Amino acid sequence: MISEAVIKRLPRYYRFIKQLADGGVERVSSTKIASALSITASQVRQDLCNFGGFGQQGYGYDVGKLKIELAAILGLDKVYDMIIVGAGNIGRALAGYKGFKDDGFYVRALFDIDPRCSSINGIKVYDMDFLKTYLQQNQVDIAVIATQKDSAKSVADALIAGGVKSIWNFAPVELEVPEGITLENISMSESLYVLSYRSKNRKN
Amino acid sequence: MISEAVIKRLPRYYRFIKQLADGGVERVSSTKIASALSITASQVRQDLCNFGGFGQQGYGYDVGKLKIELAAILGLDKVYDMIIVGAGNIGRALAGYKGFKDDGFYVRALFDIDPRCSSINGIKVYDMDFLKTYLQQNQVDIAVIATQKDSAKSVADALIAGGVKSIWNFAPVELEVPEGITLENISMSESLYVLSYRSKNRKN
Repeated sequence: MISEAVIKRLPRYYRFIKQLADGGVERVSSTKIASALSITASQVRQDLCNFGGFGQQGYGYDVGKLKIELAAILGLDKVYDMIIVGAGNIGRALAGYKGFKDDGFYVRALFDIDPRCSSINGIKVYDMDFLKTYLQQNQVDIAVIATQKDSAKSVADALIAGGVKSIWNFAPVELEVPEGITLENISMSESLYVLSYRSKNRKN
Repeated sequence: MISEAVIKRLPRYYRFIKQLADGGVERVSSTKIASALSITASQVRQDLCNFGGFGQQGYGYDVGKLKIELAAILGLDKVYDMIIVGAGNIGRALAGYKGFKDDGFYVRALFDIDPRCSSINGIKVYDMDFLKTYLQQNQVDIAVIATQKDSAKSVADALIAGGVKSIWNFAPVELEVPEGITLENISMSESLYVLSYRSKNRKN
């Protein structure tokens, strides 16, 4: 059983190791990783040990191997079919984000109550009325909710009814999902509140 | 000294309490708050106690009062002047997000190396070359980095050199900032990796 705190750190390890690999670096010490992520080296060693302990004393970690193993742990060794519900500012920004494909996340379709464009960055925009039929006819691994907060709940219900098991929610609202459904929230306002809290409590 | 975990939960309390207040609810129990946030009621009581203990046994919390007190704790009782560096998909989405103003965050200007539009949602887009001068002439409480990852570091350096103390980073890169600077990261890819990890490890 991996703790929540470790799960939250895993993506940061992966991103840093990927940066190193992209830069042609072949090995890295736990001290170097620790410094980049602002945690302790012993924490790094302990975290990575949880996944089989790939490090070697006096050598460090093999960057290429670590990248592949972390990717596999994170489920990044496969392709995910994604749809985005809501083609407003956020939905369009997500449809245009090139980084997703690198990690195997493919946006296949967008849905909107008022699909003013027929496609965005080459991705077809459908009317919301077509969502149910689309879900019957297509594999959808991850659905992104990028609607206004008032419609987020009904969209989530429709997605779950259509068999979607993983939801990535960008709407600023707490969604409740049944057992067996994976929900991950991106809350911009929460992050901004943390920033204002820290700004207020900063010693200037 | 408030723990990191409590700081991260505070915005979620605030958002939920604000939802209640907007809906005309006048009082709420710790059990109700706990259920909405998927934590325990005793955790709620303990967290809110840290900030003066506004609850009353048998009555619960006064929603209006709690909202005002949480807002003050979060630093949401003032106006923040914000700028956004990077007018790509993310920068544009942020410039168009209406929710910021409700909380007192005002986007005053955008900056881009290639300012193709002169304004976005009524907010002026300046050339990056003007950033230094702008920072000399204007109060900036929070700067948002919404550039590609390769330019994020140099942008952060320029902002800090110009006197910006709070940075909200949307670029997918680990930034290092000196003591006295407040940095908050929104990492979409990290959140997506957590989602893929959980999807992979879900018992279907």
